[in-house]
Amino acid sequence: MTSILPGSPPDVAPTPLDDYLALCKEACDGEIARLYGDGDQAGGLRDLILDYPRRGGKALRPALGIAVCLGLGGHLDAILPTAATLELYHNAFLIHDDIEDESWWRRGKPTLHIDHGVPIAVNVGDAMLSLSLQPLLDNVERIGLGPALRILRAVSHMTRRTVEGQAIELDWVRSNTWTLTDADYLTMVELKTSWYSFITPLQVGAIAAGEDPDRLAPLEALGRHLGAAFQITDDLLNLRADPDEYGKEIGGDLWEGKRTLMLLHAMRCAAPADRQRATHILAKRRPTADGAISLVELLATLTRRGELSVSGRASIHSFLMAQHVSEPKTFDDIRWLYGLMHDIGSLAHARKVASRHAREAATVLADLDWLPASQHRDTLAGLVDYVHGRTR
Amino acid sequence: MTSILPGSPPDVAPTPLDDYLALCKEACDGEIARLYGDGDQAGGLRDLILDYPRRGGKALRPALGIAVCLGLGGHLDAILPTAATLELYHNAFLIHDDIEDESWWRRGKPTLHIDHGVPIAVNVGDAMLSLSLQPLLDNVERIGLGPALRILRAVSHMTRRTVEGQAIELDWVRSNTWTLTDADYLTMVELKTSWYSFITPLQVGAIAAGEDPDRLAPLEALGRHLGAAFQITDDLLNLRADPDEYGKEIGGDLWEGKRTLMLLHAMRCAAPADRQRATHILAKRRPTADGAISLVELLATLTRRGELSVSGRASIHSFLMAQHVSEPKTFDDIRWLYGLMHDIGSLAHARKVASRHAREAATVLADLDWLPASQHRDTLAGLVDYVHGRTR
Repeated sequence: MTSILPGSPPDVAPTPLDDYLALCKEACDGEIARLYGDGDQAGGLRDLILDYPRRGGKALRPALGIAVCLGLGGHLDAILPTAATLELYHNAFLIHDDIEDESWWRRGKPTLHIDHGVPIAVNVGDAMLSLSLQPLLDNVERIGLGPALRILRAVSHMTRRTVEGQAIELDWVRSNTWTLTDADYLTMVELKTSWYSFITPLQVGAIAAGEDPDRLAPLEALGRHLGAAFQITDDLLNLRADPDEYGKEIGGDLWEGKRTLMLLHAMRCAAPADRQRATHILAKRRPTADGAISLVELLATLTRRGELSVSGRASIHSFLMAQHVSEPKTFDDIRWLYGLMHDIGSLAHARKVASRHAREAATVLADLDWLPASQHRDTLAGLVDYVHGRTR
Repeated sequence: MTSILPGSPPDVAPTPLDDYLALCKEACDGEIARLYGDGDQAGGLRDLILDYPRRGGKALRPALGIAVCLGLGGHLDAILPTAATLELYHNAFLIHDDIEDESWWRRGKPTLHIDHGVPIAVNVGDAMLSLSLQPLLDNVERIGLGPALRILRAVSHMTRRTVEGQAIELDWVRSNTWTLTDADYLTMVELKTSWYSFITPLQVGAIAAGEDPDRLAPLEALGRHLGAAFQITDDLLNLRADPDEYGKEIGGDLWEGKRTLMLLHAMRCAAPADRQRATHILAKRRPTADGAISLVELLATLTRRGELSVSGRASIHSFLMAQHVSEPKTFDDIRWLYGLMHDIGSLAHARKVASRHAREAATVLADLDWLPASQHRDTLAGLVDYVHGRTR
């Protein structure tokens, strides 16, 4: 099942699921390019908007919407503008998340703000959020007023949930909060990830197909479980995956001090001395993108060589402290955190929780008796299997 | 006329225009607070969203929409949700602009990203952009489907123009472009400022009042001229205004290297040696927010005192250069740039262009024979006079 990952080796034949996802991505990218047109080249904005989508990615969100819509007898035309909107939102969130998390690497290349600076990256994200309204208005002609408005309301609800989840996570970082339960984590993930990545994509597919409003509740349950399983597994992969397959920097979450299910488990279960050491490490900043050697290390070297006085070094240190250029995490710190999570059983715990949610998702899908057997339903089942397979 | 500025002295009696604007602001802030509700306190998001609106500001954009709507016989209820959306967009753009321009000061307080860090500020802006869709959907019940959709389309058009204008300006900064004409500047300002601050607020007022689509063209012309006059004057005030009255940091545009009409004029008209010196200054970064004393100056002092070797200082310098922590602009640099613009007639030129656009706006407004005489029309005339008055 790993062959649907973007970096899958070329000697593995694509599965029907791979083909389906590739078709969805092609259709959706075409819609985004059409939407922006060729005419306007304001500040190179068009190329910047298409940068992340062109880097690959599975177009998971469009595929979920398309599979539900087509599986319920709807047409591709009915869901394609909305699918493009979901992909625009996703990529806008990625660009802004990368700034917020200080990530350096995305789909095998430097992040947009590393390549072009924070100002341009903030604006490109805003541009994608702004552009995403147009396809939802195009829906009026394509699927009629009622469904078009229901989709607008669903997307409005989705974006609110997403920024609330993001706000909770950022607040945990700012307040250096680590005493959090699995339930706290799952609430945050549902808001931050499940709504825009799973629940809304599934629901807009049903709305575009003209399905009854009472179908939306089971799709919400399906999306919630899929989202939890997906995010936990994504966080686990971040610790250990092959970068060629995974496309993000490995262990980046630990450098960022991201609250993952396993790190929270370790902080709850560790011996007091280990918890104290972990808290100290996690309070350190991550090293800057440029610096293999840090300024602090350079100053130590100069002092050892007698080129910088001890008092001079102290002045520079206090200057840097005032500028919040504090001590960075080291590779040893990261290795120690990983060892702690491994030894204490946090990785096994996270895999268990992810697997439970994946099984729940499979059960919910199996119970959807109003969704007839088809390649579209098979695609949904394949995606559930894929998420489940990653949890093992 | 200066009494409508937020910092106007308390002994000046408010004019009818002041009262009108204050009422618009109160109604609009109430709508924003209602929209977000009290229930959800995700990560303190509600207070962060209300931070900039609570700092004051004129609520110019809501007032324009309200004045046109009421002036054409529409009701406050018909325009209020849209007015709230315009104010949310405005404040979201301010938050993200402050990050993009590295501004430190907004309405008499540190900018949001200085107070709470870039990650939280990026997300709060996204939250406001995301929330702004809901009031536009509420319009369906309030003013009916046709006008609600026309407003959604107008807002979609507006946001696209705005991010395109921002992209052009950021691209000029990134490519260090200074050979730009008045026409280049005015095109950028129309996209970046006039659409969301003037043209769309005026137009949605007419749409909410159920006015004919052919009324939109003269309102576009009115907004375009008002926007140009307003932005040029705002840039002039930035150079010299009283901070208590103006609410932004004075001369901040010069520290940022912002392309203003007068700086572009100076770069076009300066003698070659002066142009070279100005280009050199403008390529320097602005000092960091914390640093009254810069690290570079500290290193020089340590070397003078014999506490840091010349080669050690060179190593630290090259480390900093690799991290893009280059030489900052100085107060002398800024004073010299101001002197250049003054001596070469750039300030007078900018005042002339602003004044011309303000007069054009007054002419367009005077010709709107389908907008009956009322306190609402008086408010629009008062705002044109206010913008014109600032140009003198």
